[in-house]
Amino acid sequence: MDSLTPATAGKTEALAARYGHDAIPLAGPWNETIAGMLGHRSVRAYRPDPLPEGTLETLVAAASSAATSSNLQTWSVVAVQDPEARAALAEVASGQKHVRQCPLFLVWLADLSRNARLAEAEGVALEGLPYLESFLVAAVDAALAAQNAVVAAESLGLSTVYIGALRNDVQRVAGLLGLPPGAVGVFGLCVGYAADPGEVKPRLPQATVLHRERYATEGEAAQRAGYDTALGEFSARNGMGPEGWTGRVIGRLAKLRAMAGRDRLVAALRGIGFPLR
Amino acid sequence: MDSLTPATAGKTEALAARYGHDAIPLAGPWNETIAGMLGHRSVRAYRPDPLPEGTLETLVAAASSAATSSNLQTWSVVAVQDPEARAALAEVASGQKHVRQCPLFLVWLADLSRNARLAEAEGVALEGLPYLESFLVAAVDAALAAQNAVVAAESLGLSTVYIGALRNDVQRVAGLLGLPPGAVGVFGLCVGYAADPGEVKPRLPQATVLHRERYATEGEAAQRAGYDTALGEFSARNGMGPEGWTGRVIGRLAKLRAMAGRDRLVAALRGIGFPLR
Repeated sequence: MDSLTPATAGKTEALAARYGHDAIPLAGPWNETIAGMLGHRSVRAYRPDPLPEGTLETLVAAASSAATSSNLQTWSVVAVQDPEARAALAEVASGQKHVRQCPLFLVWLADLSRNARLAEAEGVALEGLPYLESFLVAAVDAALAAQNAVVAAESLGLSTVYIGALRNDVQRVAGLLGLPPGAVGVFGLCVGYAADPGEVKPRLPQATVLHRERYATEGEAAQRAGYDTALGEFSARNGMGPEGWTGRVIGRLAKLRAMAGRDRLVAALRGIGFPLR
Repeated sequence: MDSLTPATAGKTEALAARYGHDAIPLAGPWNETIAGMLGHRSVRAYRPDPLPEGTLETLVAAASSAATSSNLQTWSVVAVQDPEARAALAEVASGQKHVRQCPLFLVWLADLSRNARLAEAEGVALEGLPYLESFLVAAVDAALAAQNAVVAAESLGLSTVYIGALRNDVQRVAGLLGLPPGAVGVFGLCVGYAADPGEVKPRLPQATVLHRERYATEGEAAQRAGYDTALGEFSARNGMGPEGWTGRVIGRLAKLRAMAGRDRLVAALRGIGFPLR
């Protein structure tokens, strides 16, 4: 047990909230930044309060500071305020009301179009652009940038939630935001003050996701059973029914209709400038 | 100009280092967590010093706390110590010596195999798994988790660098780590104490990457010219030659041979259990 310096106060409680009391990992060093990350909750209800001036620029400065593959910087972000655009984006995202409700909505782009414009201006061809690898680089760049923005936002007392459902119709999102070919909204992000921050959601035990030297699945079935119980209890406490993780994974992945159009992502990406060779 | 409270001391300097003195954005709120992210440098030379006990578990706790699409948790991480495995992984990564040198090397996996095992155990089929969408969800999940680990590591005075070159040969990496079908190393991550942390690398101006309401390219050419100058000066100061961003992007993307095998990623992923439908 750590002594309760300001930096370690709450460490055991934070780990118990994240993993459940029966699966607390032997975590070592600790500080306020780490405590902030451990406290993350995805929030789907926002107060209308505006953000302090300069918040968007602070979040983008954090985003710009993330690593980017070969410094190619193949991401961009669109900040959307317009209520009609918000309503249309919420519709793409299966009607998620927080897309309209949050004071700041960010669409994070995998963006190869900037490098394509650079090449055109310089009169060179970029053979590497049309490949799946370059799309993946751009999507990962966008994710690293966005996660820095999330950590920054939460460190300021704001809440967030990613909106992957923008991928239900990437072509419509591209049309709404005036994206050039080679730019795609990988996900959205709501930012604002939580109406109800809710409880930290437990995750799979470290023994399930952390492998040493080689991938190993010994013990996984028992770990999953324990996590089913922990997530079921969390869900019941939070008015989401008692179903555990196993049932939720099956509900999300068993039937194509749950993909809400994302089973057509290859064709949709090809239609907006990503050949995915 | 902010008054120099502990939380805002160094804000202007941090923004100038990240964007150049001519492109400081009007960032607002500021704190130690944000200052830490602004100070990020990718480090490619490590001291041999071991990490404090429990560091790996702390980093994974931060990683587990990142958002994950529909709570599917489609990522895993393999911590590799074995010198022979390190040497082989470094070889995949075009010989990058820091892969062998750093005290902790993490391979972050897009991992659909866990959900596949769950489905097999439960006797159900998961129609959604073989799609590009599910691979993308897993790759983004891995990136969000890894970036939290990076922020945690840097908050502890450690340094990091992502190793995208593991994708030069995803099949060999899968073999080395004993990955089941449906799991792939998306990137590696070196973690350790920097031998020389180096200077913060400037990024494209916010005006280039941040769009308001709709994507806009007005001013982009002039912003790129300014950034070419800033990056060229940074590179010359750091012994990397005076080339600006434009030349580096062309050098990285113009010819397929610079992809070092990653132009075959689609076939390689199909070979290890990602149909990418």
